[in-house]
Amino acid sequence: MIQNLVDSIANHRAKIGILGLGYVGIPLAQRINEVGFPVLGLDVSAERIEQLNSGQSPIKHIPHQAIAAMRNSGFEATGDFSRAAECDALIICVPTPLNKFREPDLSFVTATMDSIAPYLRAGQLLSLESTTWPGTTDEVLLPYVTDAGLTPGRDFFLVYSPEREDPGNPNFHTRTIPKVVGGHTQACLDVGSVLYSAFIDRVVPVSSTRAAEMVKLLENIHRSVNIGLANEMKIVAERMGLDIFEVVDAAATKPFGFTPFYPGPGIGGHCIPIDPFYLTWKAREYGLHTRFIELAGEINAAMPDYVISRLVSALNARQKSLAGAKVLALGIAYKRDVDDMRESPSVFVMERLREWGALVDYSDSNVPVFPRMREHQFDLKSVSLSPEVIASYDAVVLLTDHSDFDYEMIRDNARLLIDTRGKYRGQVAENISRA
Amino acid sequence: MIQNLVDSIANHRAKIGILGLGYVGIPLAQRINEVGFPVLGLDVSAERIEQLNSGQSPIKHIPHQAIAAMRNSGFEATGDFSRAAECDALIICVPTPLNKFREPDLSFVTATMDSIAPYLRAGQLLSLESTTWPGTTDEVLLPYVTDAGLTPGRDFFLVYSPEREDPGNPNFHTRTIPKVVGGHTQACLDVGSVLYSAFIDRVVPVSSTRAAEMVKLLENIHRSVNIGLANEMKIVAERMGLDIFEVVDAAATKPFGFTPFYPGPGIGGHCIPIDPFYLTWKAREYGLHTRFIELAGEINAAMPDYVISRLVSALNARQKSLAGAKVLALGIAYKRDVDDMRESPSVFVMERLREWGALVDYSDSNVPVFPRMREHQFDLKSVSLSPEVIASYDAVVLLTDHSDFDYEMIRDNARLLIDTRGKYRGQVAENISRA
Repeated sequence: MIQNLVDSIANHRAKIGILGLGYVGIPLAQRINEVGFPVLGLDVSAERIEQLNSGQSPIKHIPHQAIAAMRNSGFEATGDFSRAAECDALIICVPTPLNKFREPDLSFVTATMDSIAPYLRAGQLLSLESTTWPGTTDEVLLPYVTDAGLTPGRDFFLVYSPEREDPGNPNFHTRTIPKVVGGHTQACLDVGSVLYSAFIDRVVPVSSTRAAEMVKLLENIHRSVNIGLANEMKIVAERMGLDIFEVVDAAATKPFGFTPFYPGPGIGGHCIPIDPFYLTWKAREYGLHTRFIELAGEINAAMPDYVISRLVSALNARQKSLAGAKVLALGIAYKRDVDDMRESPSVFVMERLREWGALVDYSDSNVPVFPRMREHQFDLKSVSLSPEVIASYDAVVLLTDHSDFDYEMIRDNARLLIDTRGKYRGQVAENISRA
Repeated sequence: MIQNLVDSIANHRAKIGILGLGYVGIPLAQRINEVGFPVLGLDVSAERIEQLNSGQSPIKHIPHQAIAAMRNSGFEATGDFSRAAECDALIICVPTPLNKFREPDLSFVTATMDSIAPYLRAGQLLSLESTTWPGTTDEVLLPYVTDAGLTPGRDFFLVYSPEREDPGNPNFHTRTIPKVVGGHTQACLDVGSVLYSAFIDRVVPVSSTRAAEMVKLLENIHRSVNIGLANEMKIVAERMGLDIFEVVDAAATKPFGFTPFYPGPGIGGHCIPIDPFYLTWKAREYGLHTRFIELAGEINAAMPDYVISRLVSALNARQKSLAGAKVLALGIAYKRDVDDMRESPSVFVMERLREWGALVDYSDSNVPVFPRMREHQFDLKSVSLSPEVIASYDAVVLLTDHSDFDYEMIRDNARLLIDTRGKYRGQVAENISRA
């Protein structure tokens, strides 16, 4: 059983099913297809399936031709989950968000498992890549496998291997980012390692699926806490008349023991604001309180209000109220040079601006039209920038430091420029305020 | 005035006074002497002066011959502070501890300034290297200078340049660790940069002494918070049956966005447990509360008790109480391969062991005799290790992972081994407990 699967992986004949075709699933499918495996993509969105099957990329940083190339070399997307039976390996890459009580929402994972449960069969490998609490693979996935009459480690292989995608990172991509793998049994780990080694440069085996689950949470907790610390230090530095960006830059010259993290208008994206609370939730079961995670969450979530307070104060010094002021938000994606709006702090800032009675516009060439979002609605299109446009606003607020902004032109024409990204660090000018 | 001083630095004729001959002052004096400057060391300890003048090193990681070499090439130590007048540059390297209310104790700095105040003269540079709150140079040092009738930037030069010594670091030393410098005026910064550039590879100028003061605090706050997070994660991981060292090691394979920090029995040394509270204290003046610093302080300070709780629990499982148990502490210096006991968490663990009624010994070849300490007293000598010695204790607790311990021998002979350093990570054995 194990030898058949290992052999079919070794000769790249194993069919790999990718469940969930988004920011994680698509680059993974692309990489696996690249080394010659037949790849079947499974998703619930008919729109997404059609888009991919017609060779179109739904993600800005993945070019259409990459998708077209996949299609030409055997990649296929489908909504028919019975075809999971065709696959020798199934890799789950669906989102794991929080519900509104900040508790894990595993519904995408369980819906996926419900859909493929009838088609699980002996000789398959199942890997979960979605970020989740330590214990998920055991507690949530394993019952599906045993209910199907299968025994992990004997006739089925169950692993957890956290995705580490970093959209827009120019230095690392799917193949070159080491992949942590934990197995339900040693045989599971062995087969999982064989699979991932077939298309990823370095596989890092750990002792259990729970350890692998914890690894991913720790990575994102580390980021959340360090950004939270940078944000708290920003507020202290500002009150002391110091520029935190200058301070972090100088500290970063220490060649050991210090890694720079920069403050900003809050944290965004699908990972950092969310993942840490998976541990918080699970720790409660053990009677433990994850205090760093909660402090970071609290401070980071308060940053949009801090930006507003700095804007209100700067306008006030000009005898203006925020109510009635024309304000332009620069950059609404959650980080530089991506089009991803998930959990973007810019949107929280825009909502507060609206609540305060400001007249809000935005400019972001990555997001030409403000998208439909579950919890946020703006009927806006991206404003094209020119000296006249910039000068027509009472204030412009730099929220996401995309590389295609003309920073000099913005600075030279803004009546008031609130810089949340340290883009103008070291520059002292009457129209620039840090936030 | 400025040109004279710059010239005398350029031709290495300027006499450099180092005030405070300890972990920072000695390596600095050594480096400055190495490039050919005459160096005068000033200290209040007659014992220290005699030791240095007779070519002996008071610090383990600095060899006697290095001190002897300095002596032979013009270094001299003295307790006569009137000789500050001879110096063209004065560099203060005295300790800045906390008092028992966790408030800054600047008494070493002010005592030094009191001693040299009568001898300050036109044409001198004064640099403070001691870690301290943003504003110290302005608030504490500047008045001495102006009271002497001198004007910084015109006939006197005042800078702050934080020390970044890392005793025992094999990769970086005084010359190769970039040096941040902030000046009271631009001319002060210019002269300060000229001085430090004469013996340090890279000087990093910042916009003010306050910015430079904040840089050093941020570096150590970063460490304190990240170690605090690692310690909190250790407790959570332990309860979930995971080994935090395995988890951190695996997370460290992520090639971006993650820097490994490891948990331990607490934090020690003269920097990390102390420096962050300088900012906490100063922030209060601005009505701000530094929550990450205080959380880290609280969690790190609780680690010795955590170690005890793990030991009590492991002994309990063997039907033993800690009272009456023979316990050996392995490693009492605050970190690996140094002899520095300042704020060592091992000492806190040893004190608690004694309070609980254990019979405590220790082994640490770096510290043959338990030193006189202001707040801790043990009449003990380091125990030599052998299989029989190890086996004679009810428990051995690894607190500082010195490289000269025979870890296999210890493991093979210990009845119970509490590992606070992850030295035995991945090893499962009945006699090993993580803490």
